[in-house]
Order: sequence, then structure tokens, then C-alpha cells
Amino acid sequence: MRVYKKAILPHSFEANGIASGIKKSGKLDLALFYTRSLAIASCKFTNNKIFAAPIKLNKSYLKKNKFFHAVIANSGSANCFTGKKGLKDAQDITRFAVAPLFCNKEQILVASTGIIGRRLPVDKIKRAMPGLIAGISRAGIDKAKKAIMTTDTFVKEITVKFRIGKEIVTICGVAKGAGMIAPNLATMLAFILTDANITQRALDKALGISVDNSFNCITVDGCMSTNDSVIALANDAAANDTIGLNKHFNLFTSALNIVCLELAKMIVRDAEGATKFIRIKVERAKNFTEAKRLALSIANSNLFKAAMYGENPNFGRIVAGIGASGIDVKEKDLRIKLSPLNKKDITVDVSINRGKSSAIVYTSDLTPEYVKINAEYN
Amino acid sequence: MRVYKKAILPHSFEANGIASGIKKSGKLDLALFYTRSLAIASCKFTNNKIFAAPIKLNKSYLKKNKFFHAVIANSGSANCFTGKKGLKDAQDITRFAVAPLFCNKEQILVASTGIIGRRLPVDKIKRAMPGLIAGISRAGIDKAKKAIMTTDTFVKEITVKFRIGKEIVTICGVAKGAGMIAPNLATMLAFILTDANITQRALDKALGISVDNSFNCITVDGCMSTNDSVIALANDAAANDTIGLNKHFNLFTSALNIVCLELAKMIVRDAEGATKFIRIKVERAKNFTEAKRLALSIANSNLFKAAMYGENPNFGRIVAGIGASGIDVKEKDLRIKLSPLNKKDITVDVSINRGKSSAIVYTSDLTPEYVKINAEYN
Repeated sequence: MRVYKKAILPHSFEANGIASGIKKSGKLDLALFYTRSLAIASCKFTNNKIFAAPIKLNKSYLKKNKFFHAVIANSGSANCFTGKKGLKDAQDITRFAVAPLFCNKEQILVASTGIIGRRLPVDKIKRAMPGLIAGISRAGIDKAKKAIMTTDTFVKEITVKFRIGKEIVTICGVAKGAGMIAPNLATMLAFILTDANITQRALDKALGISVDNSFNCITVDGCMSTNDSVIALANDAAANDTIGLNKHFNLFTSALNIVCLELAKMIVRDAEGATKFIRIKVERAKNFTEAKRLALSIANSNLFKAAMYGENPNFGRIVAGIGASGIDVKEKDLRIKLSPLNKKDITVDVSINRGKSSAIVYTSDLTPEYVKINAEYN
Repeated sequence: MRVYKKAILPHSFEANGIASGIKKSGKLDLALFYTRSLAIASCKFTNNKIFAAPIKLNKSYLKKNKFFHAVIANSGSANCFTGKKGLKDAQDITRFAVAPLFCNKEQILVASTGIIGRRLPVDKIKRAMPGLIAGISRAGIDKAKKAIMTTDTFVKEITVKFRIGKEIVTICGVAKGAGMIAPNLATMLAFILTDANITQRALDKALGISVDNSFNCITVDGCMSTNDSVIALANDAAANDTIGLNKHFNLFTSALNIVCLELAKMIVRDAEGATKFIRIKVERAKNFTEAKRLALSIANSNLFKAAMYGENPNFGRIVAGIGASGIDVKEKDLRIKLSPLNKKDITVDVSINRGKSSAIVYTSDLTPEYVKINAEYN
């Protein structure tokens, strides 16, 4: 298994990114991920009860349809809390792409990130669509990965390659986000492209495992976005032995785990205003869910996060965060280890003597800069 | 019903406060609330699974015993995460008071607030005890209410008087706290003293209702303390018709509601670093629990709180906070009203068209100052 710290498209994938005018700054804001070979898709969306129009549309397309050709993603507007009109806007975007992509609208998934409650400039997107599609190429991934960025200060990208028999399978991931960090800008989006030949069931299961251990194990501010989406496409172009719930499954899942976890960690590293990257490990819990809940209870404590910013080795706040999780940890069973705080990377190790399971979550510190950034007017 | 914005002790209560040396600053740090006439007690403690030694001790005394003479409270040390030794320390404090108060140790309740994980200076408290007890008086409440303060910038006190028949019943409340706001200082404590003749069942029920609508409806930083305690004593000295679950119950509960709610609001007003006092009302929910859960989901959103600090009328963050509550609110049913943000007092009104219940919660904004205060070394 080889890991590359950049996005390298798997076979039969192309991409592009352009500035369609959604962002007033004139920066890239519209991305296309395209696969000539029809791909199965597996998606994870936000649990927020109020979710954006693109997610509504994707859910309906995923019900109707099994194979997909493309994902169109925009930054600069979340298309959320925009009602029926917003849903129509999302649909229109897929319609505009139908003719130049030679496919049905239900074969196109969408994603949006940006300001909540504002309509998409559909006319601008319509005008930009022919150029976006005409310009797709293998190298276009470099524009696509930038076109999904909002306040990100660096591109989040990774590629893992591994062999199944003689065939090389590639999994490429790009992501944007840093928690709901900037004025009105909410969301993390991740796009995972693979040329693996894999069954729907195996892809769903592998993505579930990987997301649970990565994107669901990071928190910047505990705020759940309305637009969070992880969209994975697998287009079978590697022509490998089929990955099902068979001997190949663990290998594929290991590779996918690396892709998801590295992207998730990059999101935390880019958390706006943050000065620390904090890894919290909880050990000897009854099960993974319990370990993760406890770790997140610490990670989401403003007091803990402010103490980390101040390089203040405040065990009391870790103890309070543990107790606040609702898990019945006995005081005498609790062991806490904290690495030196004058470094950028901090580790917190907690052991609770209740079982054999563990979990790791990642978070950042809470800084005056975070508050200032998020206090600014949109 | 008359409301006084200061603590006026009910009949047969006396109090005192002294500087015992727990606080290095030499400020008042040890308080005694005493009732000559034995009082029934009703208490609400933190739900944090790791709770402080004084709470453990109170729980055991409340099981063994029905009538109480005193509460001894200290600031400067939380006596939490101090193991068996901490429990012994709390017990020792009640033991030191037994002889001068002419009572059993089980008739004394205790409360602590301050740094977590540090032992109480029991010797200093022992030396201070005779003076603390010898100095009790009606006017001593002015010292007691100051001796429970930590980083509070003002005293939190209120008194309500009302008639039952010819008798005047008094409910007096004092509190400290502003969320877990300062380095290692965790906790809100509230002491409610009344001369009402009331049954245990009625007192428990009334306190449950009042606390649910007041102390459980405020949030500064969403951090649950290990020491939160509300201790109510009712000593029967007003000689009124007994308040049971009878016609007097609603009157008593209304008065208690005022005491608890005003104290709770004072705690939010004193939230360190805060520049705004925010009232969030959720209407047309299925029930009170749902309305409150939704309101707290907004109130605990760092992004919402930072936007309030920036006077940024960011509806998207309110929407995201609502959806994050897990309550299935339909986008089309949602109505949000936000008062002008250039004032200190802000109101947020949310209506969700699911039923007829409502709830109000109070919170403060999130400011760079809050982070700085909480980042400082203890």
C-alpha cells in the first residue's frame, strides 16, 4: 500500500474547477468530478435535521438510481434553508449538465458549501456549465480541489494505491472544511474517488467504518453543519477481482481508512484560529461508542479547549468533561496523561478501567482568534 | 407577593461568613447558613457523573436524616476528584461544627466551589470554625453571600415575601456562579432559605419545577460542573397553614420560581467575558422538554454565540443549531425573530409549529475575553 500526499485521479476519472461568479472574490467556486465509466456511489450526510437542498436532491437520486457519472460541487453558497426554490435550483444544476455530459440528471450528485439561507446564482452557474464540462481533464483535479474551498488555508488531498492480484486500485480523496469556522460558512465536504471494482454492499460497509473512525471522530467547535457530505464513487475501471464481503474487504477498508482519517486530520489542522492539534485517546472503555462519546465530551468542552490554548495543564476540566459524558466512570479507575503543552501537537490519554475498547478523536484549541473570526459580519 | 432585590433572612435563620485562609487573597471564603428551628431540606445536584465530595456526603446525610440545622459552604476549593480523603475532609468539616452548633453532623449539609483536584485545607477550616459559628447573626447573611463568591463580580441575592392567611412567608435565595468561567473554578451554588411550613413532598416538587425552569434553563458555555448544588431549607418558623399538594402549593411555587429564575438570570448576567444577555424562547413545540432542548441547542452553539458577540444577525447559525437538536423541525414551519443586536439584551424567538408548548433559556455571548480568562494559568 502506497500513500501519496496529493490527489491522483483513479482510472477513468476526470475533473475541473472554474470561477463561475458565486464568489464575489472571483476565486474558483464550481467543481466537477466526472467518471466516464459509470460508478456506484455511497454517501454519508449530516445528521442535522435541517439539511441543505443538495442533500435532499442526492437522497432522492440515490433512491431512484444505482449508477452515477458525476458530482458537481460549489462553494460560496450552502443552498440551505432555501425551501422548495432551493431544491429546484439544485435540480437545475444537474439539468444544465445533462446534455454536455450525455447522461441523465439522476446520474449527477451535487454538493454545496457556503452561506446558509441565500439562493444559488443559478444563471451564473448555467452560463459557466459548458466551460466547466468542456475543460475536464485528468489534471483538472488540481482546479476541482481548489474550487470546493471556502476559508480553508490549504488543499486537503490524499491518494492511496494498493494491489489486488495484478491490478492496482487507487483511492483518491479531496475535502474542504475546518468545522463551521467562518462567518456563515458551514460544512465539510469530502469526495472519494476510486477505480475499485467493489460491490455496493462492500462499499457502503467500508465507508461506514471509515467515516465512523475519521470524519465522525473530529470536532472543531461541536457545531453540526447542515451540509456535511461524504460522497464516494467507485467506477470499476481498475478491473480488479471484485471486492465484496470477502478476503479483499479488509484491504480496501484499510486503504479507505487512511484516506478518510488523513483528510479528517487535515480539517482539524486547518481549524481557523487554532494553535493546537489535539489527539484524545480513551482506552479501556466497554465499547467503541462509549470510548468515542467520552473522548468527544472532552473534545467539545470549551473550558478544556481554552485551557489547551493557554497551555494550562488543567486536569479538573478533563475530569469535568469526562463526567459530563454521562458515562459512569469511577473516580478511582480514572487515569489521565497529558503531553507537554508547549508543543503544537498535544495528546491526552484517558483510561477508565471499564473494558477493552478504545477510540481516538481529534480536535483543536479554542482561541480568541476563533471567536473574532466567527463574530465578523458576513 | 413582594420581591426584594436583596437577601433578607426568613424567621429563625442566621448566617455568617469569614476569611478562613482557603483563598490566598484573604477574601471571605467560608459561609454558614444556620436555622435554630430544624428545617426539612430539598436538594438538586449536578448530573455530572464525577461529582464532588460534598455532594457525596450530602447524599448520604439526606438518606439518613430528615431535618437539618445548617449548611457550611466554602469557596476557593471544589473538593472534587479528591477520592476518599476528600470525602473524609468534607465529613471533618461537619464534625468540627457539631459541638458549637449543638447538633449531629448529619444535620449539617456542605457545599464547595473552586479548584478541582486539590484537597481542602482542613486545618485552616477547623481553626476558623469556632469564630464562624460564634459570629452568626441575622445581618451575617451579608458576609455569607460574599463568602461563596469566586470570580463573581456581584452578589446574587433575592427575597420574595407572600401571605398565607395572616402569616407572611419569606423565601430568600443567594447564589454564586457564572458557568464554569474561570481557571479551574467550576460551579454554581444556590442556597434557598424559607420559613415556610411545607411538607417534604411539596418542597421537593416545587423545587423540581422551579429548578427545571431556572438553573436548568441557563447555559454559559455548556460545561457541566462537578459541584453544582441547589440546597433549599424550610424551617416552619412562619407558622403558616401547611403547604402541601393543596391550594397553597401554586402560590409557594410561584414565589420559589421568582427566586430561582432571578438568581439564574443574575448568573448569566455575570458570565465572565460576556457582553450580551440573550433570552431564547421556543414556542409551539410538542412539549416543554422539546422546546427547552431546542432552545439549549441554539444557546450552546459556539457559532451562534460568537455571532451575537459580533452583532452579526446570522440566521443560518440559528437554523443549524435548531437542526442539530435532533428534533424533526420542518423548514417550512420554522419562524425566527431576532431583536436588534446593538443592545446588551437580545431576544431570539423561534416558533416550530409542532404543538403548544414553549420554553425560555438564557445565555451569554462567546467572546475573546471568555477564552482569554479561561486560558490563563491557575
